[in-house]
Amino acid sequence: MTHKSFRTSVFLLSVFLEISDVFTKSPQASQVCIIGAGYSGLATARYMKDYGLNFKVFEATRYIGGTWRFDPNVGTDEDGLPLFTSQYKNLRINSPYQTMEFSGFPFPEGSASYVTGTCYYEYLKAFAKKFDLFKNIQFRSLITKVKWTGDKWKVTYMKSDTRKNITEKCNVVVVASGEFNSPNIPHFEGQEAFKGKLMHSHNYKDPEDFRNQRVLVIGGGPSGLDIAAHLVNVSSKLFHSHHLIYNEPDFGGQYMKKPDLRHFTSTGAVFADGSTEEFEVVILCTGYNYRHPFLNHKTSGITATDKYVMPLYQHIVNINHPTMLFVGISKLVMTRLRDAEAQYSAALVAGKFKLPSQEEMFHHWLDHLESIKKKNHQMKDINLIGVENMSEYLNGLHKEAGIARMLPVLPSMSVFNEMNLLEDFLNFRDYDYKIISDTQYVKSYNPKKRPCLIYNN
Amino acid sequence: MTHKSFRTSVFLLSVFLEISDVFTKSPQASQVCIIGAGYSGLATARYMKDYGLNFKVFEATRYIGGTWRFDPNVGTDEDGLPLFTSQYKNLRINSPYQTMEFSGFPFPEGSASYVTGTCYYEYLKAFAKKFDLFKNIQFRSLITKVKWTGDKWKVTYMKSDTRKNITEKCNVVVVASGEFNSPNIPHFEGQEAFKGKLMHSHNYKDPEDFRNQRVLVIGGGPSGLDIAAHLVNVSSKLFHSHHLIYNEPDFGGQYMKKPDLRHFTSTGAVFADGSTEEFEVVILCTGYNYRHPFLNHKTSGITATDKYVMPLYQHIVNINHPTMLFVGISKLVMTRLRDAEAQYSAALVAGKFKLPSQEEMFHHWLDHLESIKKKNHQMKDINLIGVENMSEYLNGLHKEAGIARMLPVLPSMSVFNEMNLLEDFLNFRDYDYKIISDTQYVKSYNPKKRPCLIYNN
Repeated sequence: MTHKSFRTSVFLLSVFLEISDVFTKSPQASQVCIIGAGYSGLATARYMKDYGLNFKVFEATRYIGGTWRFDPNVGTDEDGLPLFTSQYKNLRINSPYQTMEFSGFPFPEGSASYVTGTCYYEYLKAFAKKFDLFKNIQFRSLITKVKWTGDKWKVTYMKSDTRKNITEKCNVVVVASGEFNSPNIPHFEGQEAFKGKLMHSHNYKDPEDFRNQRVLVIGGGPSGLDIAAHLVNVSSKLFHSHHLIYNEPDFGGQYMKKPDLRHFTSTGAVFADGSTEEFEVVILCTGYNYRHPFLNHKTSGITATDKYVMPLYQHIVNINHPTMLFVGISKLVMTRLRDAEAQYSAALVAGKFKLPSQEEMFHHWLDHLESIKKKNHQMKDINLIGVENMSEYLNGLHKEAGIARMLPVLPSMSVFNEMNLLEDFLNFRDYDYKIISDTQYVKSYNPKKRPCLIYNN
Repeated sequence: MTHKSFRTSVFLLSVFLEISDVFTKSPQASQVCIIGAGYSGLATARYMKDYGLNFKVFEATRYIGGTWRFDPNVGTDEDGLPLFTSQYKNLRINSPYQTMEFSGFPFPEGSASYVTGTCYYEYLKAFAKKFDLFKNIQFRSLITKVKWTGDKWKVTYMKSDTRKNITEKCNVVVVASGEFNSPNIPHFEGQEAFKGKLMHSHNYKDPEDFRNQRVLVIGGGPSGLDIAAHLVNVSSKLFHSHHLIYNEPDFGGQYMKKPDLRHFTSTGAVFADGSTEEFEVVILCTGYNYRHPFLNHKTSGITATDKYVMPLYQHIVNINHPTMLFVGISKLVMTRLRDAEAQYSAALVAGKFKLPSQEEMFHHWLDHLESIKKKNHQMKDINLIGVENMSEYLNGLHKEAGIARMLPVLPSMSVFNEMNLLEDFLNFRDYDYKIISDTQYVKSYNPKKRPCLIYNN
């Protein structure tokens, strides 16, 4: 598609409406509906509460914490809902907690910088307790449809206890349903013939499940590296197919690097270099897709595919219906950036600033598309920010919405952390980070395991 | 200047000559003249010797080692020549030695990865001894003119003992005169009024020279950071004007960060934030320029300014007179890449491969200029490679010249090292690197000082 025709077709997708001043007319009378009680939903709820707004969080499960809660179930949870969390045992966060905090709610002094997933989950619970958010969360409510009715949103959810569908009206909808719950599952030639187990890392829980098995891990992203490290001394043989060129970790043990998989056989696979290996289990660490089954263009003005969501202003505002906001869409950013997106959203609803006209937002978005094209990026990169561009994005949010400026040291930590992960995957979590000024932190080597210091009482 | 007119003017600068098959007709009969006996010149000499070629190295000083030799003199050396070395006391190399070795001449097992400058200098001497290069080096011979005569080069040098100028004929000239000997000295408003001492880091030797003085260091590059770290507990007050935004080192002591200098006063300076400070010494850590006073376009076909050298094919071959080669022009690369440039040069002279036609080399170079333009780079970036693009460049040299492929782990170490320097300047040298495969290395924290293990006997 040429750029021009792309622009045109995007334009045709868009149904421009008059901007009603929904965000500034008595915001306290607005009903804000937040979808999801993970980090993004909780951050949003906290700011809505700070601004004295009327809000409710719809959470599909019985728990807060989104992907950070470990659930021993596989596939579906205790209520028969698809499992949203992708947490596994022995996980440690892969960015220093400073880049994953909520603003103004620091981890206790003395915490390891790379806490366990369990500890981080405790932190989320402590946050929800501290800001008294539980009473605004309606659990076991799976959003199934969100529809614009001309002046309000009709939000339909299924109660997992009664299986009943219920529809409520909301003035504002904040979509905060998460990034890491819908597995990306590529197709491999001959995979139907493979008689072993083929699974996605989304369903990986515990290395013990693979003791003495021959395992193939596919993918060299954070999950693939983590799972390879966790399995290498447990499985009887660990094959790892990935593209990492530089400084792959020295896993040791029964580890064997493999190139791309060419095709499966009944008992294993043939790889790009012509080699054949046999194994019983394949774990696809092939990442996650967006998933918004409750949205479609006709009823929400949003085109949501598994790779991108559009058209969004600032990766937050649904340009076609600006009372729909997204927290957690921008890609490859630190968790802490969700806190800024949440604050932007709440400030907007509270009338602390006004959006540009729809026309202006649309042109802002088209400019963004042009910049993507210039970088030779693709449609799937529409929502890409990347750690190296976070500062610019954050400065834009700050300037427009007047929200607190984030310490510049945080995006910086994120950039260096990404390099450290790539350079020294097996040890990069053995360092502690201490922020010593707005722009500076110091690192210290501190490999000993330490207890979680979150006391959630 | 538009791109088209730039192309045209470049074209006008170029005087195309017939390519004579100089590199393949009995290479053993060719006289190769190498300018400089630093790392690049020594690497070139070694390969010329490997190929059984007839070569001579012209070295201005009485010593090998180029910038790696510490010279207590300031400004001019014992022979009255401008001082080429920029070495200072307590220097440690700022990239692991693996990225600074000569091919096939490793540091002894157990060396610290970031050896001292003195130790690295010993390494260069051991190399020259091992490959028996000293007898091919003519010391105290400062090149003053290099002129193409239609079939050969006339190379003129001044003997520093007799002060006589001597001219010799060379079939091939290799320019390896170094990167870090000509200080870049910006002009600051009011600097003439400043009554203190204003010097460049090129002339910085020893922190003791600044004990109990109030010092301003300008610049946040490797020299600026090094010198700030060396002076912070020696000077009575250390001001440091630089642009580093993220994770400046926590120097402690009497350190004070300053923004850009606005103008000097008689006793100090006013900075961009309006603040005024008083100090006695200013050390400009503002980097280095190219310097090739012996070359001009008319006599060599090379346009050599302080920021770029052109037109060069592969950053090595003088396109107008391809028997002039450069080793050490490409910018922001690891030292080890000079070894590859040296091998390329020697292989070319030895007739191991043939260059494309001048026309083809010129178009290759124009393509390179276009790629520079696309990246919004400037004229001064014509010779820029950068650590992140070294692999591509090295693969190109390998493919064209058939020279040994470099371990891909080396450019990778270089990339990560650059990040580590920026992230943790005060401690990044406390790690050791061990290469464990073509693509992998492991890091270990090992902060204790260790002796130099080069035994130069």
